[in-house]
Amino acid sequence: MDRRSFLRTSALGGGAAAATTLAAPAIAQGNTTLTMVTTWPRGLAGVWDSVERFSNNVNEMSGGTLTIDAKAAGELVGALESFDAVTAGQADLYHGADYYWVGQHPAWAFFTAVPFGMTAPEIMVWYYAQDGMALHHELGEVFGVKPFIAGQTAAQGGGWYRKEITSADDFKGLKFRMPGLGGQALAKLGASVQNIPGGEIYQALSTGALDGTEWIGPWSDERLGLQEVCDHYYPAGFHEPGAALSVGCNLEVFNNLSPAHQAIIEKAAADAHQHNYALFIANNGPALSRLIQGGSQIHEFSEDVWDAFGAASKEVLDGFMDDEIFAKVRTSVEASMENTAGWVSRSDGEYVRQRTRVNG
Amino acid sequence: MDRRSFLRTSALGGGAAAATTLAAPAIAQGNTTLTMVTTWPRGLAGVWDSVERFSNNVNEMSGGTLTIDAKAAGELVGALESFDAVTAGQADLYHGADYYWVGQHPAWAFFTAVPFGMTAPEIMVWYYAQDGMALHHELGEVFGVKPFIAGQTAAQGGGWYRKEITSADDFKGLKFRMPGLGGQALAKLGASVQNIPGGEIYQALSTGALDGTEWIGPWSDERLGLQEVCDHYYPAGFHEPGAALSVGCNLEVFNNLSPAHQAIIEKAAADAHQHNYALFIANNGPALSRLIQGGSQIHEFSEDVWDAFGAASKEVLDGFMDDEIFAKVRTSVEASMENTAGWVSRSDGEYVRQRTRVNG
Repeated sequence: MDRRSFLRTSALGGGAAAATTLAAPAIAQGNTTLTMVTTWPRGLAGVWDSVERFSNNVNEMSGGTLTIDAKAAGELVGALESFDAVTAGQADLYHGADYYWVGQHPAWAFFTAVPFGMTAPEIMVWYYAQDGMALHHELGEVFGVKPFIAGQTAAQGGGWYRKEITSADDFKGLKFRMPGLGGQALAKLGASVQNIPGGEIYQALSTGALDGTEWIGPWSDERLGLQEVCDHYYPAGFHEPGAALSVGCNLEVFNNLSPAHQAIIEKAAADAHQHNYALFIANNGPALSRLIQGGSQIHEFSEDVWDAFGAASKEVLDGFMDDEIFAKVRTSVEASMENTAGWVSRSDGEYVRQRTRVNG
Repeated sequence: MDRRSFLRTSALGGGAAAATTLAAPAIAQGNTTLTMVTTWPRGLAGVWDSVERFSNNVNEMSGGTLTIDAKAAGELVGALESFDAVTAGQADLYHGADYYWVGQHPAWAFFTAVPFGMTAPEIMVWYYAQDGMALHHELGEVFGVKPFIAGQTAAQGGGWYRKEITSADDFKGLKFRMPGLGGQALAKLGASVQNIPGGEIYQALSTGALDGTEWIGPWSDERLGLQEVCDHYYPAGFHEPGAALSVGCNLEVFNNLSPAHQAIIEKAAADAHQHNYALFIANNGPALSRLIQGGSQIHEFSEDVWDAFGAASKEVLDGFMDDEIFAKVRTSVEASMENTAGWVSRSDGEYVRQRTRVNG
């Protein structure tokens, strides 16, 4: 996904004060309309579905007493101005990927994805049954927003390459698009990491400005036509093993909502998270089959490449450990991940291995 | 779980007509209270959490205009009378495991768990992004109920044994508790399958009336004290690889609710599904660690045992294929499972394998 201008120039933590300048949300005949800016083009496969799911959930459950007016990127503010628009009170909510705000604080990354981090089911465990949501709210409070995860791409693919990757050395000098902390890890392997919005990737690959790219997964990637400009696809990647999308409501706006409307926003987001996960998985399988039929060559990275991904990811995450909130969230994430994986590998994991073997 | 009296004596499909005898739900000052009977003892670890999550979601999102009055098993009707109570209009909703109603129709099994069936994440994909919910409603309509999955135990363990299982022959004559179609599969291996309610399992093992049992998973099993009466535990099992719990609303009651209240019930259930999945996984890991520290011996079934489970499960499912609805739901489930597993094994699956290897 697009992270151009990740490193924002706005003052760190300045959002909380800005909330006091807030314009009241539109209220007519007892009904409230909240303006939601988003980081997405209207209709973007999968991602915009989570915008619509969340918005429709709120509209339907409130019986029209609370309405979400969703704006595509650029309609009210630019994609990456969404966060500031909400903290400054220009908009009531944002829908986006919270790792777009790592320039405001690096811990936002954990609420989308970090390299070698949690899968989507692991995120569910951490967020809904452990500390995840509380830590999200704690970080949000610093900036004057109330965030909830509200979308989920599931594991993002390792990406598209013109040439097969046979060792970690192949990344040296490779012009590759990858956002977030994953991109920073790839840079440590010598890649020339570039951050190009989705709409410009196809052309950059066509002209040779890029040697390869990741985007989301087979369903979304196929829509961009990446299979036309790269022959080699790696379904498994290290950079976004589960990627949550979030809504964030201006904290003062949220606190002024009725308890019922607050509950509706929270559960509308939770439903959108689960539904969006299902939607991506449901569509990725058939898309991968079409890509294979169309001639795309499917690979897995070798173990030495994964080792290099692992070492680089650790180095990137370690680099932020001076920050107290980052360290607190990382510790929570890693403890949760270890606990969940320990049980799941022995139950679901062993079951799936045996089912696959038995069914052939 | 308990499935005593699975094979109900009530008339198949008689529920739809019974709905016309329905008492109106309690309405006072514009507020509606729905009575929900459940198949669970009050407070049962994990399972009762999903009852409370669903009920609280409805109460909170509706601002008190719709209230769920949840009754434990036996408070209004017995656990396994819940379905009939709802179709007959004695209660407005049930919360239970839909495979308790296989005596009414065998296809209900798919909306809890079938042997060699879907994991919890696979259920999410099928239910929310493919045909699952629509098929659930289609089956419900035959009986006059509107069902939604609303809880999820995740993969249930292979169970507790006095003696280690080294081959499929060890099941011959084994007195083992296992409900549902999984129990029918185990019977094909020669086991003497018994269905004993949760509260009676400990004693049955103590007296030798049982040689072993499955219940749910480490968290719930530990509460029953099964580790005190069996030394050998198998975390992975074939019988309930993901087990959904459901609410079912009397169809006439549901249709008379406002669209907002209908939406609230649907999303309250979806949130309870995701939350309950997270809760079980979060608690199973630490419980397994405690069991190991306490001296329980942890095993995996051998490949020949899994082969036998697979063949017996297929035989049981094949036995119901004369039924048109059963065949339709099974076909949908198996197509979904194959599609999801094909993608997930290549993305999340490969990622988790590599993460485990790299992190050591």
